[in-house]
Amino acid sequence: MSVNLRIPGPTPCPDDVLQAMSRQMINHRGPEFAEIVGRITDGLKTLFETKNDVLTLTSAGTGAMESAVVNTLSPGDRALVVSIGVFGNRFADICRTYGVNVDTLDFEQGTAADPERVAEALKADATYKAVLVTHNETSTGVTNDLGAIAKAIRGVRPQILVLVDAISSLGSLPLPVDAWDLDVVLTGSQKGWMVPPGMAMVSVSKRAWEAIAATKSPRYYFDYTKAKSFLEKGQTPWTPAVSVYFAMDVALRTLLAEGLPRIHARHARIGQMTRDGVKALGLKLLADERVASNTVTAVRVPDGVDGAALNKLMRTEYNTVLAGGQGPLAGKIFRIGHLGLVTEADIRACLDALRLALPRVGFAPVAA
Amino acid sequence: MSVNLRIPGPTPCPDDVLQAMSRQMINHRGPEFAEIVGRITDGLKTLFETKNDVLTLTSAGTGAMESAVVNTLSPGDRALVVSIGVFGNRFADICRTYGVNVDTLDFEQGTAADPERVAEALKADATYKAVLVTHNETSTGVTNDLGAIAKAIRGVRPQILVLVDAISSLGSLPLPVDAWDLDVVLTGSQKGWMVPPGMAMVSVSKRAWEAIAATKSPRYYFDYTKAKSFLEKGQTPWTPAVSVYFAMDVALRTLLAEGLPRIHARHARIGQMTRDGVKALGLKLLADERVASNTVTAVRVPDGVDGAALNKLMRTEYNTVLAGGQGPLAGKIFRIGHLGLVTEADIRACLDALRLALPRVGFAPVAA
Repeated sequence: MSVNLRIPGPTPCPDDVLQAMSRQMINHRGPEFAEIVGRITDGLKTLFETKNDVLTLTSAGTGAMESAVVNTLSPGDRALVVSIGVFGNRFADICRTYGVNVDTLDFEQGTAADPERVAEALKADATYKAVLVTHNETSTGVTNDLGAIAKAIRGVRPQILVLVDAISSLGSLPLPVDAWDLDVVLTGSQKGWMVPPGMAMVSVSKRAWEAIAATKSPRYYFDYTKAKSFLEKGQTPWTPAVSVYFAMDVALRTLLAEGLPRIHARHARIGQMTRDGVKALGLKLLADERVASNTVTAVRVPDGVDGAALNKLMRTEYNTVLAGGQGPLAGKIFRIGHLGLVTEADIRACLDALRLALPRVGFAPVAA
Repeated sequence: MSVNLRIPGPTPCPDDVLQAMSRQMINHRGPEFAEIVGRITDGLKTLFETKNDVLTLTSAGTGAMESAVVNTLSPGDRALVVSIGVFGNRFADICRTYGVNVDTLDFEQGTAADPERVAEALKADATYKAVLVTHNETSTGVTNDLGAIAKAIRGVRPQILVLVDAISSLGSLPLPVDAWDLDVVLTGSQKGWMVPPGMAMVSVSKRAWEAIAATKSPRYYFDYTKAKSFLEKGQTPWTPAVSVYFAMDVALRTLLAEGLPRIHARHARIGQMTRDGVKALGLKLLADERVASNTVTAVRVPDGVDGAALNKLMRTEYNTVLAGGQGPLAGKIFRIGHLGLVTEADIRACLDALRLALPRVGFAPVAA
């Protein structure tokens, strides 16, 4: 029996994607790689719903977050970071590391950002050059209403830069980059894309490129201008994670054939099933259910239960790998990933395992 | 017939390494990954011949070069970059990008750095905090006498930081990190390690850690302190390229079983065979042969021959992929990679193909 890997990334990969990972190396400066990069870029543009440039980087998602900051913001620039958890805080930390003068607009863990309050913050201070926001907060299982937030932002500051961490949403949840007029939107291969980690993908708007031309932050490996100029010849500036490109090429074929409406419907259905199942066990969600994520569900560890012990028991005796809580939520929640390659049967198996494991760590689930 | 991939990275990978790339994902924060990271780190220490910390990053080699600079040098710091080609110049560019005040000591293309002149440069200016040097210059096929350079440096400045780009040498050519007292030494998985690109590996000395504690350059994704603290729990700070870790784990087993003396002897033998074969065709090496590299050979494109046309012909009709020249050497040389997984038969096939292809682009090789 294979492991039920229910963490919010790296996600399980389909067989044909894994097979592509084992292809022999090719010249990353040759015509075959150029074709692959071209095809990947086109496919990503379709799934990002954008005509903006889409660049690929060899890094984790955090590298892409750093790239968004260092390419568009200079030391001393003012930025507003909208944070609903660990990854929003990370965006703020990266800004501070590079000398960007940030204010954070924090919302309670488990809740989403209020678009009205974002608009108010922008009205109260005209000096912000950018708003940074997380689309789907992996640490709390909350999806921001990014469309409403983007609209609220543009209502106050039509030309401000909007930088979006869409690592655990894009390719799984609706995120029409151009319709929502988003400037830099970033994600990573190991999430809903069903590809092993190693590639980050970033869309860059015309407005962002204008900012980039004047940005003073130091950058070399993550320089978008170099990435764009090499992309024009079907290359990356630095040796790319070639195997991950092979795999993304295959995964995109599947995703494009399925199409965004069905991908989104599938994630919505599985997300709902997960939340319903968790509640049926008598467990409580961390997230306000109106904003609960369809890619990851955060569940409160019941009083008196050792969260680490539960996750260990699930892993060692029920073949099910859950994620723990991060930062201030360590030990207080566990998380179930349900993005990318996931079926109803996977979720059912996970819920069944929880039903058996919970009594062994001191919690009596509601009878099924 | 499979392609004879004779570029200096990505290099061909053994079957078991490629097979490892297609393993299903696991939790990068779980016990199995911790075991893998621990084993990789130990194996790398053996092959780096070091007791220093060895960190792994998800990036290309250039990312590791950037990491060496931003972790140890601050804006305004003085550094001496010893350059014998494109990659030495890249080290200097990265320094300048981060506001490091660099002097470059340049040596003519095809020659190695003179340890005496490095010592003189250090004697002439006591303000340098670091020397940055390329071990093996992939763009020209020259290996610096790094042992002699290190000795010359320490003779003048026992405590200066020595940062080494060993991307295309470590794991293929002798480079005893501790015996030569080198502070930061970096390489990439896609070179002699016989693993697909995506992982960079860096050793960090005690002296380097002392510098790092005071470094003011901004860094987040490439922060060594974060990498070290996560390594202590068998993790990486950001989601790693898990598949490349699987592959490195397998490749290191092979390399450790072969052992450094045999690995070095094999590269020396194949390097010599390549140079002898190239000369026997009547072609000229770019490198002064006394310092020619045993991982990559740069060959002058004969007068009147179109270098791009030769490489294209070799690729399309002789199944052999060569590298071109970079920067000022574009069109003037072609390069044959012979590091990692390469046999005498591969080199023979490459030389045979050249013997057939050269007359078709206007050069009559010497009869075999």
